[in-house]
Amino acid sequence: MRILVTNDDGIQSPGILALAEQLSTIGEITVVAPDRERSAVGHSLTLHSPLRAEEVRPGFFAVDGTPTDCIHLGIHGLLEKRPDLVVSGINKGGNLGDDITYSGTVSAAMEATLMGVPAFAVSLAGDSFRYEDFQGAAAFSARLAEIMQKQTLPADTFLNINVPVPDYRGVWVTRQGKRIYEDVIVEKLDPRGRKYYWIGGGELGFHNIEGTDFHAIGAGYVSITPLHLDLTNYRSFQTLASWNLETMMSLGESGEGEA
Amino acid sequence: MRILVTNDDGIQSPGILALAEQLSTIGEITVVAPDRERSAVGHSLTLHSPLRAEEVRPGFFAVDGTPTDCIHLGIHGLLEKRPDLVVSGINKGGNLGDDITYSGTVSAAMEATLMGVPAFAVSLAGDSFRYEDFQGAAAFSARLAEIMQKQTLPADTFLNINVPVPDYRGVWVTRQGKRIYEDVIVEKLDPRGRKYYWIGGGELGFHNIEGTDFHAIGAGYVSITPLHLDLTNYRSFQTLASWNLETMMSLGESGEGEA
Amino acid sequence: MRILVTNDDGIQSPGILALAEQLSTIGEITVVAPDRERSAVGHSLTLHSPLRAEEVRPGFFAVDGTPTDCIHLGIHGLLEKRPDLVVSGINKGGNLGDDITYSGTVSAAMEATLMGVPAFAVSLAGDSFRYEDFQGAAAFSARLAEIMQKQTLPADTFLNINVPVPDYRGVWVTRQGKRIYEDVIVEKLDPRGRKYYWIGGGELGFHNIEGTDFHAIGAGYVSITPLHLDLTNYRSFQTLASWNLETMMSLGESGEGEA
Amino acid sequence: MRILVTNDDGIQSPGILALAEQLSTIGEITVVAPDRERSAVGHSLTLHSPLRAEEVRPGFFAVDGTPTDCIHLGIHGLLEKRPDLVVSGINKGGNLGDDITYSGTVSAAMEATLMGVPAFAVSLAGDSFRYEDFQGAAAFSARLAEIMQKQTLPADTFLNINVPVPDYRGVWVTRQGKRIYEDVIVEKLDPRGRKYYWIGGGELGFHNIEGTDFHAIGAGYVSITPLHLDLTNYRSFQTLASWNLETMMSLGESGEGEA
Repeated sequence: MRILVTNDDGIQSPGILALAEQLSTIGEITVVAPDRERSAVGHSLTLHSPLRAEEVRPGFFAVDGTPTDCIHLGIHGLLEKRPDLVVSGINKGGNLGDDITYSGTVSAAMEATLMGVPAFAVSLAGDSFRYEDFQGAAAFSARLAEIMQKQTLPADTFLNINVPVPDYRGVWVTRQGKRIYEDVIVEKLDPRGRKYYWIGGGELGFHNIEGTDFHAIGAGYVSITPLHLDLTNYRSFQTLASWNLETMMSLGESGEGEA
Repeated sequence: MRILVTNDDGIQSPGILALAEQLSTIGEITVVAPDRERSAVGHSLTLHSPLRAEEVRPGFFAVDGTPTDCIHLGIHGLLEKRPDLVVSGINKGGNLGDDITYSGTVSAAMEATLMGVPAFAVSLAGDSFRYEDFQGAAAFSARLAEIMQKQTLPADTFLNINVPVPDYRGVWVTRQGKRIYEDVIVEKLDPRGRKYYWIGGGELGFHNIEGTDFHAIGAGYVSITPLHLDLTNYRSFQTLASWNLETMMSLGESGEGEA
Repeated sequence: MRILVTNDDGIQSPGILALAEQLSTIGEITVVAPDRERSAVGHSLTLHSPLRAEEVRPGFFAVDGTPTDCIHLGIHGLLEKRPDLVVSGINKGGNLGDDITYSGTVSAAMEATLMGVPAFAVSLAGDSFRYEDFQGAAAFSARLAEIMQKQTLPADTFLNINVPVPDYRGVWVTRQGKRIYEDVIVEKLDPRGRKYYWIGGGELGFHNIEGTDFHAIGAGYVSITPLHLDLTNYRSFQTLASWNLETMMSLGESGEGEA
Repeated sequence: MRILVTNDDGIQSPGILALAEQLSTIGEITVVAPDRERSAVGHSLTLHSPLRAEEVRPGFFAVDGTPTDCIHLGIHGLLEKRPDLVVSGINKGGNLGDDITYSGTVSAAMEATLMGVPAFAVSLAGDSFRYEDFQGAAAFSARLAEIMQKQTLPADTFLNINVPVPDYRGVWVTRQGKRIYEDVIVEKLDPRGRKYYWIGGGELGFHNIEGTDFHAIGAGYVSITPLHLDLTNYRSFQTLASWNLETMMSLGESGEGEA
């Protein structure tokens, strides 16, 4: 099995090193990862400037781009053969609830899915991030990779894995939960008297609802959330039907000409 | 009605100027937009460096960040009162199918939704982007804003609007379609002999399936797709149930200790 | 006379607009300037990523690079004919004493000199920077450009002009003065608890010595300092001669071989 | 002796590692260097965004800024005591002739000089840059550091050292030579049809004049060039005297007032 590995914490992160080591026991791995931290970059693609890829050691490519760039460049440029699986992580910290839309780690798995390659993202829902802290999640990832080699995911679907610390009691399939956002902006003055702003990091809560990723982690279980690329809210079609949008006719047809 | 306006083409783009002008006829607008083009940045948030906001003219703030940053900074920092609506656009080119996950324009509306503010993204599905080309989509946006003031969207839901050119025959509520990706990487050498790569721009196709955003645009209709923030693929739960993931027990419980 | 105009405050700065307008009365101008502020960038050249140049209006090119890049790109890429003169400015604030080594404005004139094009940098030694504040310095620049068209500077030499406010009593040829540096570093914590640092801006003094640029500005005179590219301190040769450096023989000759 | 070490090739470069190792045999070193390559950045200072410094291993700080920033931050922020010496290098490739004005390595020594700390920059004038290639220059640097501890440089003066390969025949005190610039701009189109430019790297020559840094390297000698911060071309004062600049009176005095 050929496995392409990336992350958003950067190619030096202990999380990707632990992951790569465990995956190398079950397949042939190539690491294509950002040259430095690129967290919270979402599904961001570098279109207007070129990318560099440096092979920092055999099979490890550092790219001056986003995780999404890394997957794109890996599959279409750096790897000789198409990978059988993409694994993104192990992220420093959980990727749970709506936060996954910001996550570079999750977006890399999304990119692989768009390219038709099975993928999962894996995150360590803890707060200590030494090399050894990632061992459990790395071993889990290797076993999941083996399962995915034999099984088939539904079309356009990938998995978002969160692993609790220090150990897990089992595995739950979950749905995406919901954060309670209480974000703030911190305003400051630089030494030259010009204002600047930090996007703040207030202590965030979440809705601890059964069946969600948050709930699984809280209960000590690995959370496996199947995600897809279709953001359509089908249940809101009925609501919109009542808006009589059909009456919003074109300027050309119903506008000034008829006035 | 207080309306916060942003985009991803930058505050100088004719699309946001046309939009702001039309919206100012129905509400009090504040523009908080990137100081330069930030397309394809996805749902990207700037956490590790600070942001600057310059009021380039009254009510127009240029920010050195992403569209998502602009919404965050606008709602929590720059606006005195919480806006009633966020409108993001008018984007130069359609935001259709899976491409919306890359879109800074759509991600700004997503961010507003996370903060509990009703929002829509609007894009011009054409290839000429002069100020006058945006007039039809801008007028449509103003009318939609008026409707949204009276109606209530389902929770956690926002609208992705695409407007065809040169005019539209009506309005369809659609689901998110699917692109056919044929991306390539272009490899080159710089004058110093070092390789670099462009993420290529091959001519892309799409699945022209009835009910999708692509199909509406192709038929000359405005496409309104209700989107939500839940990426869970509920229909794949059954598939995963058959994987016997429960057998993947923790290292601590079933691993070396028992060997 | 063909004049290439740049600055480091960015192509939108009132200083370059006032300068371009006045110079256009005596020659044919092309503006190639940074798309945004690039002050304190020194003699910085962009070698490892490519540059973009957008003609924002006829004869005005905005470049996503440094002032030095702008001169390079202007002379070798964008201008059809080699310019007769390069003028860089008008800078918001004086470029006096050792500070010129940091200055993007002065470095642009240095770059032109390396390419064999006569050049001067011009700065407004004031603290109000509206369009009208630059008129005196702009008019002075136009007259100096006319003089430089008839005169010849020594080889590898360019001029650094500082204009006092609100008006000047005359013109002095000066030497580069010396600042008293009292810089500080400001240490802070971001909302995520990570340290960051600002290079501080303490109120700086200078040695008010007769004959220097500082002294001219203090006395209300335009300061014209002829600069060259030779940083050699010839007077220190004698000091170094006494160091017996000749005894520092190569490892190969005197080192391991003799052991 | 406390020695602050930096470079412009980045903290991972073998040149700075070889240098730090040799200097640690004669003093207490702290490395404060850019987190990645920052060559050709000149005397560039980061004033409008903050800096980060990460202690990647004891006594080694990686900074997301320029070499000049590193010196500033090192002396005023990170080091507990003021260093006795700053050494910048060992640069991958010579810093000879006018090129020193672009050099981040040389500019770091310039910054130290502005802060009153003795300094030298050191470059390897070769084209192979493995760890072992830097050993000769590193050993030379350690011996020069010892000499500089006992000797006193003239005020505002620092040394620019270039070491030839594979070995050197002796040491010459030189003056700054002159390059022959033949730069070109390479124009290209990206995959989306937009132009971009590379600042080209034509094969450059130089004036092989006796007494210059170029000549020393060509003859197999270490080149030591004493540099200062005074760019004034004193010899051009006479030329400028003949320009009758005194007649360029102020607009206020000779302009509207006399009309």
